[in-house]
Amino acid sequence: MYSVLIIVGSDSDLPVIENTAKILDDFQVKYKIRVASAHRTPDKVKASVRDAEKNGAGVIIAAAGMAAALPGVVAAETVLPVIGVPLESKAIGGIDALLSIVQMPKGIPVGTVAIGKTGAANAALLAVRILAVGNPGLSKKLEAYRKKMASSVEEKDSRLQKLGIKKYVLEKQ
Amino acid sequence: MYSVLIIVGSDSDLPVIENTAKILDDFQVKYKIRVASAHRTPDKVKASVRDAEKNGAGVIIAAAGMAAALPGVVAAETVLPVIGVPLESKAIGGIDALLSIVQMPKGIPVGTVAIGKTGAANAALLAVRILAVGNPGLSKKLEAYRKKMASSVEEKDSRLQKLGIKKYVLEKQ
Amino acid sequence: MYSVLIIVGSDSDLPVIENTAKILDDFQVKYKIRVASAHRTPDKVKASVRDAEKNGAGVIIAAAGMAAALPGVVAAETVLPVIGVPLESKAIGGIDALLSIVQMPKGIPVGTVAIGKTGAANAALLAVRILAVGNPGLSKKLEAYRKKMASSVEEKDSRLQKLGIKKYVLEKQ
Amino acid sequence: MYSVLIIVGSDSDLPVIENTAKILDDFQVKYKIRVASAHRTPDKVKASVRDAEKNGAGVIIAAAGMAAALPGVVAAETVLPVIGVPLESKAIGGIDALLSIVQMPKGIPVGTVAIGKTGAANAALLAVRILAVGNPGLSKKLEAYRKKMASSVEEKDSRLQKLGIKKYVLEKQ
Amino acid sequence: MYSVLIIVGSDSDLPVIENTAKILDDFQVKYKIRVASAHRTPDKVKASVRDAEKNGAGVIIAAAGMAAALPGVVAAETVLPVIGVPLESKAIGGIDALLSIVQMPKGIPVGTVAIGKTGAANAALLAVRILAVGNPGLSKKLEAYRKKMASSVEEKDSRLQKLGIKKYVLEKQ
Amino acid sequence: MYSVLIIVGSDSDLPVIENTAKILDDFQVKYKIRVASAHRTPDKVKASVRDAEKNGAGVIIAAAGMAAALPGVVAAETVLPVIGVPLESKAIGGIDALLSIVQMPKGIPVGTVAIGKTGAANAALLAVRILAVGNPGLSKKLEAYRKKMASSVEEKDSRLQKLGIKKYVLEKQ
Amino acid sequence: MYSVLIIVGSDSDLPVIENTAKILDDFQVKYKIRVASAHRTPDKVKASVRDAEKNGAGVIIAAAGMAAALPGVVAAETVLPVIGVPLESKAIGGIDALLSIVQMPKGIPVGTVAIGKTGAANAALLAVRILAVGNPGLSKKLEAYRKKMASSVEEKDSRLQKLGIKKYVLEKQ
Amino acid sequence: MYSVLIIVGSDSDLPVIENTAKILDDFQVKYKIRVASAHRTPDKVKASVRDAEKNGAGVIIAAAGMAAALPGVVAAETVLPVIGVPLESKAIGGIDALLSIVQMPKGIPVGTVAIGKTGAANAALLAVRILAVGNPGLSKKLEAYRKKMASSVEEKDSRLQKLGIKKYVLEKQ
Repeated sequence: MYSVLIIVGSDSDLPVIENTAKILDDFQVKYKIRVASAHRTPDKVKASVRDAEKNGAGVIIAAAGMAAALPGVVAAETVLPVIGVPLESKAIGGIDALLSIVQMPKGIPVGTVAIGKTGAANAALLAVRILAVGNPGLSKKLEAYRKKMASSVEEKDSRLQKLGIKKYVLEKQ
Repeated sequence: MYSVLIIVGSDSDLPVIENTAKILDDFQVKYKIRVASAHRTPDKVKASVRDAEKNGAGVIIAAAGMAAALPGVVAAETVLPVIGVPLESKAIGGIDALLSIVQMPKGIPVGTVAIGKTGAANAALLAVRILAVGNPGLSKKLEAYRKKMASSVEEKDSRLQKLGIKKYVLEKQ
Repeated sequence: MYSVLIIVGSDSDLPVIENTAKILDDFQVKYKIRVASAHRTPDKVKASVRDAEKNGAGVIIAAAGMAAALPGVVAAETVLPVIGVPLESKAIGGIDALLSIVQMPKGIPVGTVAIGKTGAANAALLAVRILAVGNPGLSKKLEAYRKKMASSVEEKDSRLQKLGIKKYVLEKQ
Repeated sequence: MYSVLIIVGSDSDLPVIENTAKILDDFQVKYKIRVASAHRTPDKVKASVRDAEKNGAGVIIAAAGMAAALPGVVAAETVLPVIGVPLESKAIGGIDALLSIVQMPKGIPVGTVAIGKTGAANAALLAVRILAVGNPGLSKKLEAYRKKMASSVEEKDSRLQKLGIKKYVLEKQ
Repeated sequence: MYSVLIIVGSDSDLPVIENTAKILDDFQVKYKIRVASAHRTPDKVKASVRDAEKNGAGVIIAAAGMAAALPGVVAAETVLPVIGVPLESKAIGGIDALLSIVQMPKGIPVGTVAIGKTGAANAALLAVRILAVGNPGLSKKLEAYRKKMASSVEEKDSRLQKLGIKKYVLEKQ
Repeated sequence: MYSVLIIVGSDSDLPVIENTAKILDDFQVKYKIRVASAHRTPDKVKASVRDAEKNGAGVIIAAAGMAAALPGVVAAETVLPVIGVPLESKAIGGIDALLSIVQMPKGIPVGTVAIGKTGAANAALLAVRILAVGNPGLSKKLEAYRKKMASSVEEKDSRLQKLGIKKYVLEKQ
Repeated sequence: MYSVLIIVGSDSDLPVIENTAKILDDFQVKYKIRVASAHRTPDKVKASVRDAEKNGAGVIIAAAGMAAALPGVVAAETVLPVIGVPLESKAIGGIDALLSIVQMPKGIPVGTVAIGKTGAANAALLAVRILAVGNPGLSKKLEAYRKKMASSVEEKDSRLQKLGIKKYVLEKQ
Repeated sequence: MYSVLIIVGSDSDLPVIENTAKILDDFQVKYKIRVASAHRTPDKVKASVRDAEKNGAGVIIAAAGMAAALPGVVAAETVLPVIGVPLESKAIGGIDALLSIVQMPKGIPVGTVAIGKTGAANAALLAVRILAVGNPGLSKKLEAYRKKMASSVEEKDSRLQKLGIKKYVLEKQ
């Protein structure tokens, strides 16, 4: 049993997806990661989705670059909520993947997050938010996470007030 | 009590949001729509979010155009999953709203859907998918919806095979 | 038996695809048009491709708008050459469909043509060029088509030399 | 008491903001820099704005990247003039931040400057221009700054006339 | 004597600039509007700026479309704060004017607002904010304006709660 | 004998090119307009260029839309200066033609002007500027043209000062 | 005799085109590579196309960057199917080449593939698909290639299941 | 006396402009290079233009980055033909400079070339083409230059035929 299925179109996407895995680990949410391509192994994509449904998954995260069909193809295969992560490519910087994922036609929704690492992390947090609907324990963890984020900003600001900008920047280099 | 809060930044966004409301009605999912602006009435945004939490809402849909801060500001106020709908504006066609909503910084996720009417409809479907996690009745309705969509495509194709493209196009005009 | 399969994601794409059909008619190339969506009826897409292969088709043309996954999904299902036609959508003018079709990952090629009507016509001509490989009769028709295009430009130029630009423009209005 | 409040959404923005600080130092304009995020610490943003108003600040500079809501959120909190600095991000080069800051809806203006370091420096100069309204001493400093800029261009041109382009370029490397 | 100089590059820009004039009228701020082109009448631009300085103006608003050099050229002529309004053009929708105004080189700042009518209105509000620095009377008017905006949103929301979305949208058509 | 050759890729471009013709008429500069396509009638393009060289033409203006190869192909055929006019197309608004014309590889320069009607007019003026090098009579006409443009701006400004913005805008409608 | 002609506009494009050559080698498809520029050596382009036709070539692949006229110029010279590969350039990342190749006017089709290396590889695969029409031996090789691709994805996924994401990523570095 | 004036907005643009200077040197065309900024030293720009006119210059080349007003401001100051070179900037890659230069309003034409080094070289060649109008000696040099370019392509192609692609690419590294 696992709560989140993560599918990537290529194993070269895995370093970015570590950001997703890390946050799910922090929230102690079980997940499975699969390499399966909408274009190269469409049957494996289907099988992975079926496996997720059987294992009680509540969310699927799909990450892909370029003409990123994977999230939409996954969303067409299931009624589970699907989160799409557009990945950067060299030539156009990820705007191709973003539009390929977010501009889904009527009927098949994909919840799209930011391009690259930031999106990979936020995909995990959005998945946890979805799983936390009707799960007060998980909601509390999210509240705690949010407070920790706020504290971290506060600490940085306090340090900045103490050091001034020049020393702060020097120290961080 | 209601399951989905829909917030729009301006009442001029309501015609687009009718696409969201219609689908939620079809699924018999209760929702509340509020006009509240991240920039003009930030306190009302907060109050609407609190009201949604108290009324047991499981998802918030936020729609805005141009420098569309609303979905992000809502996501910063709650741990409920937030869906962002970028709206078209005259000069740049909605790419401003899309980037303002999807490129959220790490920590505050917004699941973004397509620009305009299509996105407004898909926001409703994504909300239903989220509410259907652990709700087999709603899941079945989604399966039925998907089958109906497929049948509708099949019917159109059958009609096309029967009429040929010229007559089909003429008939639809 | 037919030589070209044309798949469109939605029947609203058919008026644009009439430009494709007309040119194939002119070249007396047999074709079949199907409405089948990569997201709404993936199985129908597969079945249509299988049918094309059984009927001896040599090329598949797939047209779609927005997050246009159809051409790539078709190309993943067959080893026939696939031509993708990106269609215009209201908000971003077709750049979403263009990038979703042309930026295919390594291994699954789609030959992409221009956005909208022009691309729909050129998809037919590219299909005929492909079918004409090793078919001298069809090649001659293409040569004839090219000469006719050239003559048409020549005639317009002659008329322009005769009338001058003012009268020419007035006459055409 | 200070004249300019500078808010950045993240401490990783501070190296860019050093360009702002340096120019305000040159003009002997007092400022305070705070790390406060529109999404992670909205209350801190409010508190910082209130503090600026109490301390007689005349301008607020807000810098942020990606879906850069900070400048707009600040502008919604105060009637002081707000200057927005869009910061570069890796994937799309800052066009996301630019549109998120400049395309503000009617009623809440943000004066936006160029992306990145150049904008950070110009934000300081625009702030000084605003503070100089009705402050002849500061106006004179701005005139002097402008003359110095012009002289620096003149000197470079003189040197170029003397050395020729090849030597000039070599010397600068 | 007047407080704001508004320069437009062409008289065809005046309908958009009426949005600026109307708001300045509402705030009882005196202004002068001039048609003067950076490219066609550079000397008139200079003379207009000199006139503004002599008449005690505190802000200059410059609006232009396409390769919109006017705001930058004005900013180079004065140390008054300059607000740039990018105007829409037919072919590229105003992104040309936006980049031509906002991407000013170091040393010559222009505070840029949104493209078109929205920006024209916000330019007036930003000008008032600048003039209100050290002018409590004007600050209070701005606070009142903000409250009125908020009330207007509240009223629309109340009406929406009363009518429901269908009737509300019908009524507005 | 004629001084300027104007080539358009299609007779549908002629209404835009009337703006070019009108200005050349005003300057009493002789020109010839030809419809000749880089892709459909490459030999005619060559022949037109040869004819221009024989007739003493000093400049060639080439206008085209979409994948606008014509100006570059013309520039490859001659050592005369070539001016390229990118034309608007429906889907992407002319950015395709602009990049296809301006981004010429090293060795084959094309002087590119603005998209559409404005560019068509400016192409004529740039051609006259080129022909005026070493032709004092033509230079004087250009000076006169510039003064007339300036006067026209002055007149509009005077009228605006007299009428005020409301009446001016009403009167122009 | 050879089956595919590959033309590049500059020898600096050859490293990218090695991706094309390698795949054609794998399929034992004979090809010829020529350096010939649409702008610098238009006659050589023509001669290369004629040579290809005489040698029984069935497809032409043309690769170029910036204002990439080559594929269109080749398509205008022949009735063979032409595949265009847009190459990256430093300043705009290849969007210039993409639009210059894909937005061909009606009558002259170019089947365009992705920007850069990925497109160069896919151009070869599309060429093989075209040559395989009516060539069952080549079709079988394509099927085998597709299976190998799928197996490679499967193997990576198996390894990922065995190692977990952390070890997998470490091992690949 | 000199034939071409080259103006750059900043001495940091000089390394790119060396490409312009080198080609003018090759053609033995006299030129003067000045550092003068449209925004920082507008009077120097004017003076440089006047100096060019007095020294018999036939063309002015102006290069600038970001909100690149310089070429337009120069074109407004003279009736000489003006060539604009858009320079790359870090954040948006030069599209800002390109639009700021090419989208000139009606009446003030600037012949724009490609972004960066390629454009800098082509600006020189376009200047020579302009100066060669009515100068057969210079025209012959341009013809010779074109032949040399063609020969260089031919030589590379011959070498490629001899070595094959693998060795050719290895040798060039």
